[in-house]
Amino acid sequence: MRIAHLGHAELRTPKLEESVNFFKNVLGLEETERTGQSVYMRAWGDWEHHTLILTESDHPGVEHFGWRVGAPEDVEAFAKEIEARGEKVTRVEAGTEKGQGDAIRFSYPGGQTMELYYDVEKFQPGIKRSALKNAPQKPPYRGLGVRRLDHINVLSSDVTKARTWLQEVLGFNLREHLYVEDNVEGGSWLSVTSQVHDIAIMQDATGQNGRLHHLAYWLDNREDVLRAADMLTDEGTIIEAGPGKHGITQAFFIYLLEPGGNRIELFSGGYQIFAPDWEPIKWSKDEIEKSIIWWGSPLPQEFFIYGT
Amino acid sequence: MRIAHLGHAELRTPKLEESVNFFKNVLGLEETERTGQSVYMRAWGDWEHHTLILTESDHPGVEHFGWRVGAPEDVEAFAKEIEARGEKVTRVEAGTEKGQGDAIRFSYPGGQTMELYYDVEKFQPGIKRSALKNAPQKPPYRGLGVRRLDHINVLSSDVTKARTWLQEVLGFNLREHLYVEDNVEGGSWLSVTSQVHDIAIMQDATGQNGRLHHLAYWLDNREDVLRAADMLTDEGTIIEAGPGKHGITQAFFIYLLEPGGNRIELFSGGYQIFAPDWEPIKWSKDEIEKSIIWWGSPLPQEFFIYGT
Amino acid sequence: MRIAHLGHAELRTPKLEESVNFFKNVLGLEETERTGQSVYMRAWGDWEHHTLILTESDHPGVEHFGWRVGAPEDVEAFAKEIEARGEKVTRVEAGTEKGQGDAIRFSYPGGQTMELYYDVEKFQPGIKRSALKNAPQKPPYRGLGVRRLDHINVLSSDVTKARTWLQEVLGFNLREHLYVEDNVEGGSWLSVTSQVHDIAIMQDATGQNGRLHHLAYWLDNREDVLRAADMLTDEGTIIEAGPGKHGITQAFFIYLLEPGGNRIELFSGGYQIFAPDWEPIKWSKDEIEKSIIWWGSPLPQEFFIYGT
Amino acid sequence: MRIAHLGHAELRTPKLEESVNFFKNVLGLEETERTGQSVYMRAWGDWEHHTLILTESDHPGVEHFGWRVGAPEDVEAFAKEIEARGEKVTRVEAGTEKGQGDAIRFSYPGGQTMELYYDVEKFQPGIKRSALKNAPQKPPYRGLGVRRLDHINVLSSDVTKARTWLQEVLGFNLREHLYVEDNVEGGSWLSVTSQVHDIAIMQDATGQNGRLHHLAYWLDNREDVLRAADMLTDEGTIIEAGPGKHGITQAFFIYLLEPGGNRIELFSGGYQIFAPDWEPIKWSKDEIEKSIIWWGSPLPQEFFIYGT
Repeated sequence: MRIAHLGHAELRTPKLEESVNFFKNVLGLEETERTGQSVYMRAWGDWEHHTLILTESDHPGVEHFGWRVGAPEDVEAFAKEIEARGEKVTRVEAGTEKGQGDAIRFSYPGGQTMELYYDVEKFQPGIKRSALKNAPQKPPYRGLGVRRLDHINVLSSDVTKARTWLQEVLGFNLREHLYVEDNVEGGSWLSVTSQVHDIAIMQDATGQNGRLHHLAYWLDNREDVLRAADMLTDEGTIIEAGPGKHGITQAFFIYLLEPGGNRIELFSGGYQIFAPDWEPIKWSKDEIEKSIIWWGSPLPQEFFIYGT
Repeated sequence: MRIAHLGHAELRTPKLEESVNFFKNVLGLEETERTGQSVYMRAWGDWEHHTLILTESDHPGVEHFGWRVGAPEDVEAFAKEIEARGEKVTRVEAGTEKGQGDAIRFSYPGGQTMELYYDVEKFQPGIKRSALKNAPQKPPYRGLGVRRLDHINVLSSDVTKARTWLQEVLGFNLREHLYVEDNVEGGSWLSVTSQVHDIAIMQDATGQNGRLHHLAYWLDNREDVLRAADMLTDEGTIIEAGPGKHGITQAFFIYLLEPGGNRIELFSGGYQIFAPDWEPIKWSKDEIEKSIIWWGSPLPQEFFIYGT
Repeated sequence: MRIAHLGHAELRTPKLEESVNFFKNVLGLEETERTGQSVYMRAWGDWEHHTLILTESDHPGVEHFGWRVGAPEDVEAFAKEIEARGEKVTRVEAGTEKGQGDAIRFSYPGGQTMELYYDVEKFQPGIKRSALKNAPQKPPYRGLGVRRLDHINVLSSDVTKARTWLQEVLGFNLREHLYVEDNVEGGSWLSVTSQVHDIAIMQDATGQNGRLHHLAYWLDNREDVLRAADMLTDEGTIIEAGPGKHGITQAFFIYLLEPGGNRIELFSGGYQIFAPDWEPIKWSKDEIEKSIIWWGSPLPQEFFIYGT
Repeated sequence: MRIAHLGHAELRTPKLEESVNFFKNVLGLEETERTGQSVYMRAWGDWEHHTLILTESDHPGVEHFGWRVGAPEDVEAFAKEIEARGEKVTRVEAGTEKGQGDAIRFSYPGGQTMELYYDVEKFQPGIKRSALKNAPQKPPYRGLGVRRLDHINVLSSDVTKARTWLQEVLGFNLREHLYVEDNVEGGSWLSVTSQVHDIAIMQDATGQNGRLHHLAYWLDNREDVLRAADMLTDEGTIIEAGPGKHGITQAFFIYLLEPGGNRIELFSGGYQIFAPDWEPIKWSKDEIEKSIIWWGSPLPQEFFIYGT
């Protein structure tokens, strides 16, 4: 019984068409399906029907995000485990979310709604099929051409509580964490894969619980991130922060807000964790600065306050 | 009970000092210990006491290579499983190999000697400690500065038999394979991590069983590989093949022979596999060319014949 | 009286629309004007009305290529100098070639037709205007997005004679040359700018005079060239040679044939020459191999024979 | 009569050995000669005896910087021209500065001391000779391995006056300039080569005349600059600003202070100017922000005040 990987996120946007246009023509995502107020998308390197759902709403934010589990029976097994922990679990029938089989949704102490599922349609490339058989399709060479959905970063009122739940119930591994005071965990980075983080939970400076900090896409190298900065600036998209390198995760990043108001990270770099006995890297209060910005500009104040 | 990751390889070399000098000053590895005819080394991004042992011998080759298992008890559990499959298992006492706890060694149908272990000393950086706490040490900025040991590629007389054994006994996942004839598997790429391959097994054109094709080091991006080509050429090291990109694994590579005669790959790129239901990519006879060289020069004949 | 820089080339193509489509959608050029059987194009980093003219013809090749001179009066001054050297000079009235003022055309010992001109329309970006005021337009982020026309490489039956004429009459500086026999110059690389070559002249192995070897476009870095290889291969364009690095010029290259049959080089790297007393680098017979391929695959035989 | 290129700079440092160590082991320069309180150095891609002189002094700053002229007779011809403009010219005998022939020194309205010379010893690589005949030596692969001295940026109390003098007397071309008020030129970027700038003159916010803002070294691509940021940070060197991209010059940069206190820029990118009729790019008051930082962090206040 295990979580396999981050599957997708459903973001709310007050400007659906502008958001779709941004993800499609600037970031270079592919649209795979539309239904009602929702548009399903994926990056060219994503294998599944969708890794992003944009849904029209009066305010931005994350409606839910989904994890693929390791086996069909894990969905129900996790449901029981989660219910045993006192959380309410909702069954979502196959097809409710396009391209997806039976799923469960639930809240957790971090505040966002998460989903678990196993069955999912594979993307059918059709004329976009690549002769490179291990690629889900030809790269679109449109916009920035981000390669794949990588991780999600959420805000919580109690980081320790939220990340402990992820460790205990869903089997996440704690990879790095930052203490902003001796007893206050300001952020935790966890994964079920060999990546440093599939999810990060950061303390919400406003005291809220359940907001999105950012959704992150992977680019193959740092030059691609710089090329993204070139294009975004000329297209008039404001780069909120970066380029720079985080100490935590070693990610080389830029951040921006998509037209709907949700924060997006474009990044490359980082490192892989294969050791079965990895000891979480603990950054203490006096290491905050370097842990957040190894080099590059200090993050703007807004970065620590604004979430959706 | 699981294999966690590739731990190290012990290479034989008829020119120990020349080999050590090459790995240290050209590739940029660190020497951690010497004992008898063996020198222990690691790349700056490797966390353990060693990931390479160079041992003086009258001919090159791979003495053994080791896998770290997921838990202490897995060593003995695997020993029983392997013995049940009819292979002889040798217990290697803690300390026999420096920095390493109790281990087992055995041969498998692929012909090479493999080792399983769990306990291993972590590298102690001392004055090389990086302020980047999630890095095992400061990069040496010496030579090419390869970041970490990545995978091993071995030659076998019967690829299907060897890779099936790895799947059935050690739990490896088959990621890609190539059929050179309708019923002849020319190569298989397998992993226990999210990497496309931790090990590859290719058909030995000479009919032998158990030789090494190459040991591969990871560099962070393609520009680093090109920089390596610049340096190697000026230092007089012959680049056997590349730069080019394999279809299988999507690796961007160069190959060379270290002074002892063993083939080394320097590479970046590739892709990650997170899907729990990954279906092995099967390249058929008529796709051989593109599967081997997606672009870049055809590999020299020697590449398909020479092994150690 | 001086040549300022390479201005443009007019290539003949038997497949005009296919060629235009390739330069536009694969290489990422911009179309600026059409007239009769000719299409005018430029790269996004080129400042002038056009740097390439594609003209329909029954066979590929270079109709002419043009140099911008340093001052308006240089056109006529060069005309007199060239006539004094015994070459026939044709006056081309302003507007005959779109966007261009009065020009002269003439043949020279290398066999191709060259053009000199000063007046030329600047490209007017309109809605493509970049906020980056020192860029002629926004990058299109379409296809490979090659940045600018860089140099031309032509074939001649007598390299020494051709390059000497360029030095003596047009004031070119010899930067590097290669002797394939003690007394036979196999290639010369010359420039009027600080680049290693604005033009190269190579010996035509077939004994002809006046053919084109290739036209070269600049990309900002080596990663862009590798990205080009990725895209071209997936689009089905055969990469004739590379990636690799020439010893001569230090260029990191790939070569391909556009649909009309003309060879195109995509490259980055090289070096700048600022010294007023630069002594031409002379590569001798026994240095041929390294001078041509510093590293990367040997060039195919066709590379030394095929020209247009 | 022309200036060919920037030849070298003599920097004063209160910490000679620390500065030498920094330029040598961090930036990767080569030491070529020592005499009295001065150490002569060059980058591996520089062809001459030296491009930097570090001279012990009680305070940092630029003692002088030198330009190579186009022909031997230009030294004296410029001397007469400069004297005619009312500046005092000092003859510096061959050998006074090591490796250099007869030179002249003089001040100009910008306040710094400049030098003109033609004769200079070429660097003799000896065992560092590269098989790449068009490279002055093998890359050292030590530290950052900056490739060559690129430009100098100085502070002046009257930018317009200083740059006009450079244009009128030394024949510099104005490439870009920035007006901080309608009638106040805040900075000018000029060159004699096809580079955007061989020298930049910026307004000294403190009203002084003659200080150094920074000396800049070229790296071959943006990835090299990021790699520099990685190394510098781990070595404990504070990156004063960047990485980021200037609008003016399109340079991708980082800035730092060497141990003696002088500011150094490491950069790549930019663009080439070949047009004989280049019209200086004029950035106006309301374009200041984008002209200075196209993207990347705002420059710290110190950047606009601190000079040596």
